Amino acid sequence: MKNQLSIACLVLLSAILPGIQTIHAQSHEDAIRAIYDEALVNGQSYEMLEYLSLEIGNRLSGSPEAAAAVEWTRQKMIKLGFDTVFLQPVMVPHWVRGQKETARLVNSASRGSLDLNVLALGNSVGTGPEGVSAEIVEVMNFDELEQLGRENVEGKIVFFNRPMDPRHIHTMQAYGGAVDQRGAGASRAAGLGAKAVIVRSMASNLDDIPHTGSLRYDPDQPQIPAVAVSTNDAELLHRVLESDGKARVYIETHCEMLPDVLSYNVIGEIRGAKNPDEYIVVSGHLDSWDVGHGSHDDGAGCVQAIEALRILRDIRYAPNYSVRAVMFMNEENGLRGGREYARVADEKGEKHVAALESDSGGFTPRGFSMTGSDDQVEKLRSWEKYLGEYGLRDLGSQGGGADIGPLRQSGTALFGLRPDSQRYFNYHHTEEDTFDKVDKRELELGAAAMASLIYLIDQLGI
Amino acid sequence: MKNQLSIACLVLLSAILPGIQTIHAQSHEDAIRAIYDEALVNGQSYEMLEYLSLEIGNRLSGSPEAAAAVEWTRQKMIKLGFDTVFLQPVMVPHWVRGQKETARLVNSASRGSLDLNVLALGNSVGTGPEGVSAEIVEVMNFDELEQLGRENVEGKIVFFNRPMDPRHIHTMQAYGGAVDQRGAGASRAAGLGAKAVIVRSMASNLDDIPHTGSLRYDPDQPQIPAVAVSTNDAELLHRVLESDGKARVYIETHCEMLPDVLSYNVIGEIRGAKNPDEYIVVSGHLDSWDVGHGSHDDGAGCVQAIEALRILRDIRYAPNYSVRAVMFMNEENGLRGGREYARVADEKGEKHVAALESDSGGFTPRGFSMTGSDDQVEKLRSWEKYLGEYGLRDLGSQGGGADIGPLRQSGTALFGLRPDSQRYFNYHHTEEDTFDKVDKRELELGAAAMASLIYLIDQLGI
Repeated sequence: MKNQLSIACLVLLSAILPGIQTIHAQSHEDAIRAIYDEALVNGQSYEMLEYLSLEIGNRLSGSPEAAAAVEWTRQKMIKLGFDTVFLQPVMVPHWVRGQKETARLVNSASRGSLDLNVLALGNSVGTGPEGVSAEIVEVMNFDELEQLGRENVEGKIVFFNRPMDPRHIHTMQAYGGAVDQRGAGASRAAGLGAKAVIVRSMASNLDDIPHTGSLRYDPDQPQIPAVAVSTNDAELLHRVLESDGKARVYIETHCEMLPDVLSYNVIGEIRGAKNPDEYIVVSGHLDSWDVGHGSHDDGAGCVQAIEALRILRDIRYAPNYSVRAVMFMNEENGLRGGREYARVADEKGEKHVAALESDSGGFTPRGFSMTGSDDQVEKLRSWEKYLGEYGLRDLGSQGGGADIGPLRQSGTALFGLRPDSQRYFNYHHTEEDTFDKVDKRELELGAAAMASLIYLIDQLGI
Repeated sequence: MKNQLSIACLVLLSAILPGIQTIHAQSHEDAIRAIYDEALVNGQSYEMLEYLSLEIGNRLSGSPEAAAAVEWTRQKMIKLGFDTVFLQPVMVPHWVRGQKETARLVNSASRGSLDLNVLALGNSVGTGPEGVSAEIVEVMNFDELEQLGRENVEGKIVFFNRPMDPRHIHTMQAYGGAVDQRGAGASRAAGLGAKAVIVRSMASNLDDIPHTGSLRYDPDQPQIPAVAVSTNDAELLHRVLESDGKARVYIETHCEMLPDVLSYNVIGEIRGAKNPDEYIVVSGHLDSWDVGHGSHDDGAGCVQAIEALRILRDIRYAPNYSVRAVMFMNEENGLRGGREYARVADEKGEKHVAALESDSGGFTPRGFSMTGSDDQVEKLRSWEKYLGEYGLRDLGSQGGGADIGPLRQSGTALFGLRPDSQRYFNYHHTEEDTFDKVDKRELELGAAAMASLIYLIDQLGI
């Protein structure tokens, strides 16, 4: 009820505030001010995210919900009146979790038996109903695993327990320093004969919520089951091993990879006035993990991309380049959408000047990362004179976005929205990534930041 | 349970990370890095805030909880081993809410009768059990009120309904543009014969939660009761007036101002090595409103101030100046603590080089505001070379903190921590300002930012 009400129209406000000015070749400062006013007074991103989160819910590639999200997004962009709205077909993996996974510390000397909070990792094979039961062996990294060698690993469950380093100010760096355990841990352990792996959740905080996320199996190794365990339970297992010297865990997962499914990238376009055959992309990814609402990851990015286009249209800005809002499919466990978009662009000879993705949550924006030439980075940094007063001062660190990455090979300048990163890994890939974790103003400021960058690239080139 | 667990010691982490380096006349960059490492790996601010929020709870001046907070803070700083810990007596107002207030739209043509979500404004007189019932007259500002004149206001309830302007990027500015209605509305309306006032809550969002806060009665006007109404109900009243042409409201409040009570500022000090008789203050205010936990306002600022001192001590930094953590009493409805501190400092001839307050919530810090000479502002801005990589790039805008304001008359340079402001006015002065709204890392980063600024002032002067 509260959320329903809080996104009611600001009837009163619209009545008493002066009308949002439309842009008639005023200064860049005026244009950006108009973008922000439109986002903050008439914003539609929050209402869109509410629908995507609460009506459709999470939407893993290949799921019925992903199909619903594709159709809803298509209809939404048609309703918003963009010049062209179309679907780009792409075959995507179809992994399903199946019956809820369980894990249990069994007959430990110090704690007896108790349930652990786990989630199967995406793309993982399941244990099936018979489960896997074995002693666990804890390692902090692949070097320690190799040192243990086959004699200490074979037949065991390897427990990867290196935390995200809290000393990084930007949590994305801490994530980058730990996520190899999740992505490659299963195959590395399988190479030494392990029966399964347990990976400490990629989380900034200590709680009971496990974080899923994708693994990639090495084709040369056996495929073994893998689960993420909550950070609290990871700490618990560590203490049990310390006090008891050993611990046995039972894992049961029912996930499996089904045949590929036809899905789509969803694309809305405003045609450019001067260079209609050159493109600027503003994007997010429509798929999410199969827990929570996928509100921060990446419902936020999707509605911000649509909203950026809507803002430019509603302040009557006619772009020089064609601007596309692209909702990519299958970022989470395959990147098929991003690859297909770049392939088709290449095939059709569509020149992409720049691409921007929002895929770090709907938090207060603090700047943009980018991948481009030194001159391009310098140019982005010079725009602090326009963007700084909106809190966008973190400009030009290395980055972009996973889905737009494949466009780099044809020279496209890549940009990533950099929101405040502190809370992202409390929610990322969990049942806690829900609509109520997104603040309306923070989300709107992100959409305005994206529209402003698109405007500057369109006006000043990159 | 979850919160209990999430503040458990990072046992594992301490084991695997390299030890935090202590400072031995390394570079300023190294010192600040050591401050952040200490805050993020061994931080105690979150655990302190948990106690203040959940064990003591809200703590309005003069309440038993405020007394408990004084004693807990004193003991906490003694336990932390600061050189000196002492209480500074100050008489404070003692306003009590009494029996829960109620308000009701009565017999409206379009909606019938329904309850409104209200909170009496702090310092307000009560209606008593007989209540006040009258037609409401809506105004957006004092000009409109004056234009209505006594003939349209006398015997009515004035409804101040100007929203916080969402176009401000920093919500503190939107607050500043609306809060005159809360502070002075009652006396302005009383001057024209109104029986009571209803003020739209000072909030960035639309929801059902009323926001309290203090009013100041003009000694030349009758004191009339005043309540804040939730933003959703403010919108509702506006629509009822629009459709029905009139609306009658019943208000019943039981608040009253009791005689002043003896309370205290709580002060912990590390003695300076070179200039022990000159002081740098790092501060927050210990009192809060009597709803919620007062976690963001201003439990966060208190624990960050204590933590800043603890960090400097635990990295073995010996300051040149004496550094004081000051927990002021009675910021919310009187500022008696801040005034008394400045009065005593002046009386004792204690020179205060600089004072820093955190009183804008425990959100990710983005910089520092300041009140000082142009040279001092320039100096602060030049420290972006040390602070920028920690996200502290918003340096030198006008500001400081209410409690430290009285020190300005003796030339003290004033600083205010500037956290991200987007969510602050969702919670400010409401039952929603609770511990779970504070993120551990965001809080810790604020403490580290404060310790870093104190360090720079201590090393480089201001």
